Amino acid sequence: MKSAYLDHASATPVRNEVIEAMLPYFRERFANPSNVYDIGSEAKRAVDQSRASVAGLIGAEDKEIIFTSSGAEANNLAIKGIALARQKKGKHIVVSSIEHHSVLNSVRFLERLDFEATFLPVDKYGLVSPESLAKVIRPETILVSIMHANNEIGTIEPISEMAAICKDKEVIFHTDAVASVGNTRVDVGILNVDLLSLSGPSLCAPKGTGALYFRKNVRLMPLIHGGIQESGRRAGTENVPGIVGLGKAAELAKTELPEKEPYVRKLRDRLVDVVLKKIEKVTLTGHSAKRLPGHASFCFEGIEGESLIFMLAQNGIYVNTGSACASKALKTSPVLTAIGIRADLAQGSTVFTIDSDNTKEEIDHVLEKLPTIVHRLRSISPIWGKEIPAYEEGVCS
Amino acid sequence: MKSAYLDHASATPVRNEVIEAMLPYFRERFANPSNVYDIGSEAKRAVDQSRASVAGLIGAEDKEIIFTSSGAEANNLAIKGIALARQKKGKHIVVSSIEHHSVLNSVRFLERLDFEATFLPVDKYGLVSPESLAKVIRPETILVSIMHANNEIGTIEPISEMAAICKDKEVIFHTDAVASVGNTRVDVGILNVDLLSLSGPSLCAPKGTGALYFRKNVRLMPLIHGGIQESGRRAGTENVPGIVGLGKAAELAKTELPEKEPYVRKLRDRLVDVVLKKIEKVTLTGHSAKRLPGHASFCFEGIEGESLIFMLAQNGIYVNTGSACASKALKTSPVLTAIGIRADLAQGSTVFTIDSDNTKEEIDHVLEKLPTIVHRLRSISPIWGKEIPAYEEGVCS
Repeated sequence: MKSAYLDHASATPVRNEVIEAMLPYFRERFANPSNVYDIGSEAKRAVDQSRASVAGLIGAEDKEIIFTSSGAEANNLAIKGIALARQKKGKHIVVSSIEHHSVLNSVRFLERLDFEATFLPVDKYGLVSPESLAKVIRPETILVSIMHANNEIGTIEPISEMAAICKDKEVIFHTDAVASVGNTRVDVGILNVDLLSLSGPSLCAPKGTGALYFRKNVRLMPLIHGGIQESGRRAGTENVPGIVGLGKAAELAKTELPEKEPYVRKLRDRLVDVVLKKIEKVTLTGHSAKRLPGHASFCFEGIEGESLIFMLAQNGIYVNTGSACASKALKTSPVLTAIGIRADLAQGSTVFTIDSDNTKEEIDHVLEKLPTIVHRLRSISPIWGKEIPAYEEGVCS
Repeated sequence: MKSAYLDHASATPVRNEVIEAMLPYFRERFANPSNVYDIGSEAKRAVDQSRASVAGLIGAEDKEIIFTSSGAEANNLAIKGIALARQKKGKHIVVSSIEHHSVLNSVRFLERLDFEATFLPVDKYGLVSPESLAKVIRPETILVSIMHANNEIGTIEPISEMAAICKDKEVIFHTDAVASVGNTRVDVGILNVDLLSLSGPSLCAPKGTGALYFRKNVRLMPLIHGGIQESGRRAGTENVPGIVGLGKAAELAKTELPEKEPYVRKLRDRLVDVVLKKIEKVTLTGHSAKRLPGHASFCFEGIEGESLIFMLAQNGIYVNTGSACASKALKTSPVLTAIGIRADLAQGSTVFTIDSDNTKEEIDHVLEKLPTIVHRLRSISPIWGKEIPAYEEGVCS
């Protein structure tokens, strides 16, 4: 059977080069990098080299990288680490209303510790307005966290503009770049951010890996306390094979990104163009241009996203209803609510994330199957055929 | 050159069976367990099976296991998670003074959030006295954390006795079993604990893996907030290959432990007997009987531990000065200070941790080289030959 895996935002197959790089560190070179003897130093060198590769991918210095066990951990470390280290200066935090759960729930945790949070609204494309950010910053504001690209709707935020506002007001700026690093160019200097989270799987590195960039001299309370690993900022024996894998993946991503971006954009554009042309009553969610190159997200009217996912999977096509983390937890995506999509239409949300291992033939397979499946699901839908506008009025600007 | 790796408490080579079990989950079966489609369910089944294996090793129920990225993370989750979830009941915590840094520094973090901590002293063997524990528990005490076995001196604490005291007083009891799970039998029912931390590398599973046992119905604030992975108690995409590796290692440990314990004990006993007989002025630290079977720790008078480590490494023998996490951070081990060892003698601390891949020939190699190296180092030592008792008076009972 023909197949097409188009859910790279949820999970990616680890690249063979990455597996090969990792393998020796499980058994032959297994020592603890904290040990002073020769085989320990060898493990430490491997970790240092990976740190340089990850730093190189995002234009950071080596010592500005902390390895974590996931993008979620990096987000928790950034949000809680800055808030707890800077609370004497103030207890006000600003985030967008479409952040990942790991940011939103870290903020909600801090609210229980008497921090105050402002959740910035977004427009119908999911864009945060820099002007609205400037307005909510107060003398007590210590941290702003706005994601670089949204995982559900693909929209890329105007980060450097917002980071400049924060720099001007001496507020620390963090961006969750889990969805973007590896998929589009990310440079901490150009973005002008103080902290940036990234995840290994976005780079086809193994699950269980991630990193936080923090501008040197930024004070940070550790999330995992203990020994002095990661310059005292993240305790626990370093996951040497995972870190080596992340380093190799970062190295490959840096080399290949200039070719990958236009390649996946072309596949994505074809998918979007044909879907919008062949299928009636479908809304492309997020911004049409300011979005991740391999990302296409739609709301199909009169359809339950989960039914669509299942029927596509029966045809070897793997896509998502939204964020993998939320897919089992929530009925309506808070992101789609925030951009003002009608609740019933949000149920038909489907996210395609394309990577460089996808082919034109796979996209053609989707374009062959998808219209028929949508048609079949609509023919049994109780709500199909009713005339309602896609966006609720008055929710977004 | 002959060699002997005797630093298994720092790092272990991942077993071939474990690597083989993990490998398919990097690339062929790479899907995200949170996804609803078939290949996601396949990954979820693998995680569930590993959960059952880890639970089986320690006599827990499947749903009482939370996978973490390390033993240190498990300790942080236990200490902070219980403290923050129970703070309305009280803000007093009790730990021993020889806990791992990940416990001690989690407690110090909580002190900054207005929690109060009591650090229980230990005797010259590193044993906590259940009577002294009973005395310090107050109505505001919400959590007691005493390690099962100490990584530096090998001493096994009377956990079930202390856990019974806590149960009686409705205080949650956590034990850090990172040094013991995989090395001696650990059963949460027999120990009678509410929470227990374990680490993958202690089982020859890969770095970057660990788990926390929590008795069902124990409330716990997550350390990593975000999605609903691990029943909402630990966010971030599951490290599927790592978890599969940990599960396989737990399965093997359960089968092999009855044979492994007497085997490593015999090697350890031979090492201890000959060292104490052949080398003068050497102190076995920790308890002689109530200790981990593969653990031998000594203080050699008139010697710097680091010099000894280096010279042994030149002969292919890998041992440690104490805890790997602390080896680059600290001059004198707080554990040795707590058991009342003289500061100058503590400098000569050396820890041997034996696993089932070690052989009698390797121990013989150590016994051949060690006396000569100790003799050579003493011959250039400025403090060798002075008569001072090993334990400082009045520090311990």
